[in-house]
Amino acid sequence: MKAPAHDPAKLFIRLFTPLVLCALCTAAAAASRNVILIIGDGFDDQHVTMGRNYLAGMSGTLGVDSLPFRGAVQVETLSTAGRPTYVADSANTATAIATGAITSVGRIGTDIRDRDLPTIAEQAVTAGLRVGLVTTSSITDATPASFLAHVSSRSCEGPEEILGSTYYGVPQPSCPQDALENGGPGSIIEQLVMSGAQILLGGGQKFLAQETSAGESVRALAERNGFRVLTTPSELRPGLPEQTIIGLFDSENLKVRWRGSEGRRAEMAEKSWLNHLFDYLGEVKAPEPMACEPNPEATNTPPLALMTDIALRQLSIDNPRGFFLMVESASIDKQSHKRNPCGSIGEIEQLEEALARAMAFANSHGNTLIIVTADHAQAAQILPEPSHYAEYPMAIYSPGHTARLKTPEGSIMRINYATNNGFSEEHTGANVPLFANRTDQALLTPFITQTGLYEAIKVFLLPEGGGELVTD
Amino acid sequence: MKAPAHDPAKLFIRLFTPLVLCALCTAAAAASRNVILIIGDGFDDQHVTMGRNYLAGMSGTLGVDSLPFRGAVQVETLSTAGRPTYVADSANTATAIATGAITSVGRIGTDIRDRDLPTIAEQAVTAGLRVGLVTTSSITDATPASFLAHVSSRSCEGPEEILGSTYYGVPQPSCPQDALENGGPGSIIEQLVMSGAQILLGGGQKFLAQETSAGESVRALAERNGFRVLTTPSELRPGLPEQTIIGLFDSENLKVRWRGSEGRRAEMAEKSWLNHLFDYLGEVKAPEPMACEPNPEATNTPPLALMTDIALRQLSIDNPRGFFLMVESASIDKQSHKRNPCGSIGEIEQLEEALARAMAFANSHGNTLIIVTADHAQAAQILPEPSHYAEYPMAIYSPGHTARLKTPEGSIMRINYATNNGFSEEHTGANVPLFANRTDQALLTPFITQTGLYEAIKVFLLPEGGGELVTD
Repeated sequence: MKAPAHDPAKLFIRLFTPLVLCALCTAAAAASRNVILIIGDGFDDQHVTMGRNYLAGMSGTLGVDSLPFRGAVQVETLSTAGRPTYVADSANTATAIATGAITSVGRIGTDIRDRDLPTIAEQAVTAGLRVGLVTTSSITDATPASFLAHVSSRSCEGPEEILGSTYYGVPQPSCPQDALENGGPGSIIEQLVMSGAQILLGGGQKFLAQETSAGESVRALAERNGFRVLTTPSELRPGLPEQTIIGLFDSENLKVRWRGSEGRRAEMAEKSWLNHLFDYLGEVKAPEPMACEPNPEATNTPPLALMTDIALRQLSIDNPRGFFLMVESASIDKQSHKRNPCGSIGEIEQLEEALARAMAFANSHGNTLIIVTADHAQAAQILPEPSHYAEYPMAIYSPGHTARLKTPEGSIMRINYATNNGFSEEHTGANVPLFANRTDQALLTPFITQTGLYEAIKVFLLPEGGGELVTD
Repeated sequence: MKAPAHDPAKLFIRLFTPLVLCALCTAAAAASRNVILIIGDGFDDQHVTMGRNYLAGMSGTLGVDSLPFRGAVQVETLSTAGRPTYVADSANTATAIATGAITSVGRIGTDIRDRDLPTIAEQAVTAGLRVGLVTTSSITDATPASFLAHVSSRSCEGPEEILGSTYYGVPQPSCPQDALENGGPGSIIEQLVMSGAQILLGGGQKFLAQETSAGESVRALAERNGFRVLTTPSELRPGLPEQTIIGLFDSENLKVRWRGSEGRRAEMAEKSWLNHLFDYLGEVKAPEPMACEPNPEATNTPPLALMTDIALRQLSIDNPRGFFLMVESASIDKQSHKRNPCGSIGEIEQLEEALARAMAFANSHGNTLIIVTADHAQAAQILPEPSHYAEYPMAIYSPGHTARLKTPEGSIMRINYATNNGFSEEHTGANVPLFANRTDQALLTPFITQTGLYEAIKVFLLPEGGGELVTD
């Protein structure tokens, strides 16, 4: 029976219920808080400037330069004996940002006594927020791993490696105490797919094929935990129905966007026989200039910006609670280790593009904190071209490896790597840059530690604390 | 005759005149604006962190870290042909901060066409403000020179050098067109003592003894221009009556505070014969650890903090108009060129002490803007101790010079220099830190260029423009 038009109680309910619901919905949306943490691995001030000079020009401006907040982050590392040490790796630094605790090189979500440290991402899961990790490395690499896993060594990426592996033929630490069969939380990939996260995008397919101690493939374990598994970039498109996705698009790390022309990297100066005898005499020829070019191996690699877009959509759609998303441009560092400045610069461009997507999201979704930082400093240095001592009547050259990049604005930028003689450059110890889209100093101070970043993210994302289990 | 107590007009005047005068005086004091620009030469993020780790500990905080504003400054340099180049020297960078114009390496207050550029300090003099330059280098060195002089090359420090000189036996550029006898503004020291500045403190006595083309000593020229000339540190004491002082306390640069134990600097790794044959084989011995100790040569050197204190008093006393003071800790860079990390760290401590004096002044005198920055980045890098590849079965060592510093907190900090094989390390091209005591982003943005720093200082110091001659 149709209600008479003049029944005031029913009219009130009919008119006001949608308004009340809408107000509640708005309140929930307003209460939802999102954090997008963008990590440029090795993205220190030399690399920021290298990227700016190449991508925007000497007098240009990067996206990170346009953010309203800038500061510096002190990197803290402990030796295994608990003493201060002054150069970090991606494991202990990501652990510091993820957990608020200082630990030693190589550790993932564990302190120097091997105790598991709760991470901000785990607290977000517990509080009913969504969580995503996006990276250009293997999803099991140190930076993403530290947000959702706890093992004694970064090398324990899969159920095979947790029992022992080699790197360049050198045995790597195993983590038997962390293995599922020994009552531990499992290898990094096993912990990731059992973490309750909604989005895991990057590389690391090889770990999907490994078998857990129960004889099940990691892929099956992921599916059993609700993940849709993607392994080809064409599957990564807007409008995916599932909310929970693991997409791994290369065996280990994703291919990088750029390389030096004809695959050249930084090279050693070419000495004449006289220079070999007497350091200041004879001719020493610097490497020929090179340009950067697209890496032909990377044609089927999803851009970091696309992965970031997909993650933002999947994490935010119909989500009144908010999310934590970590986005890493991992190979700024990896290419610096390999003395490939074009490789690093292309990955800085990827970080810039991901930041642009994050900023677009924040502009249309209030309460979104964007933080961009590096985990540690790296080897590359911009050197004078030519040397400031070129006029001196002696052979002046770098004892390391040098690349002379032709920049788009028509100059030569000389990049040098000289931290060791070996196959891979070292990290360095400088404090790293911090950029953010909010200037509130009650949240972020201009000088902060990596554990301070954890506190800031936690205060913003989980203002009532993150220990409480909330079910939606 | 005593005025009757009831004469209302006179009573009014007697009572209110002091109040009106006081109000005027307060207005004048409020209108006076002071800028203290502190430049750490080569004080990039590697050096800031090196200083923090040694002076305050890995988890400690420097004075610069406590300032409420932090940002980054892009360093812009042009080749002599006007193209972007990516590594600067102290001449073109100080010129950019002092004049707001980008120029080429080695130039002092001149553009790449050798046109003189008006400096912020000269505009301050013209506007009736006081001006001071304080440095631990020779007062004629590139950084202080660029604020009050205009020559085509930094080497033209005195009336002798302006006609030609040598450095390490290599001929240096002369600036005949700038010589007084040719109708130019004179050598750097001549321009400084004729600049109208009130305070010039640092090193550079050797230039006082030189003769101008008129046959007069530079010392006499200075005195004729109203300067009291000090040459012994004991003369540098609070309560000096004269307002106009040139105090030069060493022949050229001031001695630095610290050195490595027994005068040691960074050293090359010691290779075995096998390593000389095959890079990865044999033994390579890293240098033994060292501590920092007082430099015995520096006992009679005035600290930068004392010079800063004297300058602040002389510039501020009975001064309703305000002042511009540049304070430079010059040898952070000079010691980095020489691969002496203890030398650099002692000069970072000097910068910190000078900053503390500047902050104390600002706390008791409103309208004082303090900016701390570096002019360009430098060679030193903090490397892992031991190498992150130490477990690999091969000889891993830096191809450059390494110092392993015992820090007060009981760890070893490894500092590496490997930008060239020569007698002096290179500058590097990273953007440099910016610290300030004011957070107003209308004044300073978190990312700024060195020419932008000039604009900010000018807007703060000379809000009505600086071109107008004001006589007090």
